Amino acid sequence: MSELTEMGEDALIERLVDLVPLAADLRARPGDDCAVIDLGKGELTLFKTDAVVSGVHFLPKSPAEAVGWKAVARVISDIAAMGGRPGHFLVTLAVPADTQISWLEDLYRGMGRCLREHGAVLAGGETSRVPEGSSTVISVTALGRVEPEHLVLRSTGRPGDLLLVTGRLGGSLISGRHLSFAPRLAEARWLVQKHRPSAMMDLSDGLAVDLPRLAAASGCGYAIDESALPLAAGCSVDQALRDGEDFELLIALKPCDLSGLMQDWEHEFPQTPLSVIGELLPPGAGQDLSGGWDHFASGLAGMPT
Amino acid sequence: MSELTEMGEDALIERLVDLVPLAADLRARPGDDCAVIDLGKGELTLFKTDAVVSGVHFLPKSPAEAVGWKAVARVISDIAAMGGRPGHFLVTLAVPADTQISWLEDLYRGMGRCLREHGAVLAGGETSRVPEGSSTVISVTALGRVEPEHLVLRSTGRPGDLLLVTGRLGGSLISGRHLSFAPRLAEARWLVQKHRPSAMMDLSDGLAVDLPRLAAASGCGYAIDESALPLAAGCSVDQALRDGEDFELLIALKPCDLSGLMQDWEHEFPQTPLSVIGELLPPGAGQDLSGGWDHFASGLAGMPT
Repeated sequence: MSELTEMGEDALIERLVDLVPLAADLRARPGDDCAVIDLGKGELTLFKTDAVVSGVHFLPKSPAEAVGWKAVARVISDIAAMGGRPGHFLVTLAVPADTQISWLEDLYRGMGRCLREHGAVLAGGETSRVPEGSSTVISVTALGRVEPEHLVLRSTGRPGDLLLVTGRLGGSLISGRHLSFAPRLAEARWLVQKHRPSAMMDLSDGLAVDLPRLAAASGCGYAIDESALPLAAGCSVDQALRDGEDFELLIALKPCDLSGLMQDWEHEFPQTPLSVIGELLPPGAGQDLSGGWDHFASGLAGMPT
Repeated sequence: MSELTEMGEDALIERLVDLVPLAADLRARPGDDCAVIDLGKGELTLFKTDAVVSGVHFLPKSPAEAVGWKAVARVISDIAAMGGRPGHFLVTLAVPADTQISWLEDLYRGMGRCLREHGAVLAGGETSRVPEGSSTVISVTALGRVEPEHLVLRSTGRPGDLLLVTGRLGGSLISGRHLSFAPRLAEARWLVQKHRPSAMMDLSDGLAVDLPRLAAASGCGYAIDESALPLAAGCSVDQALRDGEDFELLIALKPCDLSGLMQDWEHEFPQTPLSVIGELLPPGAGQDLSGGWDHFASGLAGMPT
């Protein structure tokens, strides 16, 4: 094995982090949605980086304002998934020299709209040229904050927990939803304050990739009821499992908390489905989903906008 | 004006940050070496992002370990220039799928070595694919800390301040020093504690670009004595002014502090030249250097390694 195509993203990260001094004070393992740092000031600091790449996460003809929205919204989704609130953002632009300034202005307008709507701010950034013909890379880093009692990891699920997802899954690329989705910040903040999940993460690479990650991090097996999956309009079960870029919340919840949550949820978020789709099991039990979006294995199939 | 090539990096940033909600609690303006955030309770938080791009900041044949060193060292240099200490780092890798895993391992070894030597740690990261043939982009973000009394901005120089630089300038790309330089962290920390500069920044784009930035941020003019420039071996004055990637400190200092500083410096850092190269003047007075490394205007001339 010598090229990235032969190795999954998770295995790669594990191999690489062994080569560097890792922070000793991390409250979440590398691979969780955000790094969690205790700077000793009461609230915990969330620290997250992510990137969108032309030809991978958007296409040259995608509206720049929507690309900017997506670049910021992806990071807010990760912060939400830990129970936190987004704060200061930095943006690194790596763009070809022939990029239109109006394209960059629209990009920043979209980033600005997403920051504003979620109570976040820009603190700075950096620009760099990439060689002619090379893809634009927009790297976004954020600081967030979360009260220690509201922090939710992906590694703290327990066998017997129910699995729930917000919204509807599948078809995000085809429908263009991947460029305009609303990160589940309000929902996640409400959850951690009112009906604390056992574990939580956001669905970025598809349920079939992300659920095994949550289960493995929690040391659990899992089973899902495919007939219970909330399908996006016109989507199959396979699409709901594997299309990726849903940016919905995957939640593990103690069964005794379900009825109270469901009742309150319908009152609080009447427009947003919340679906029980399965459960966590003892390690080794249950299913083995596989497939979904792996950055190094996947092509750009079905990404028209 | 519609393409980036027709607009400088500084003008671009100014135009873009007008389009987003800017942090109200920043202690440094966008354009300083780092964002400075007051999260309350004592030390200030430094927040910095930077990127190295294949074909711009390194070449495909550059040793991966040196590329990793450089990617981290650039950010440490920025944190040092504010008087701070580096802490938690995040790395975003955007690489083609046919990247060799051994190349990435060497990259991380180099990053790890640079982190370790400067008391910094990795907190996490993210990986993404770029399309085939597209340049690798390595984006590095860091948190640092600085005591409020040790924070030094580039905007606080005053007319009459002397201008000093550490080390020798020019030829960084040709000599390969841009891949192996030692960020002036120890020197900067010593300075802010013992002989506090009026203003400071690191020289990344060349003195002819960076000095006008410090002077403009400080509302000053400037004059330099070209015969006093500390030239790297075999380099001309023009190279010292315009090659860029020196990663030395540019310091503004009250004249009355000079003799004490020089005496202590020679004792503390006998291997490292510290040269008086000019002074800050009232606004409008003095020289107008121009040229140097602008990411969107420059080619990759003379970058053999």
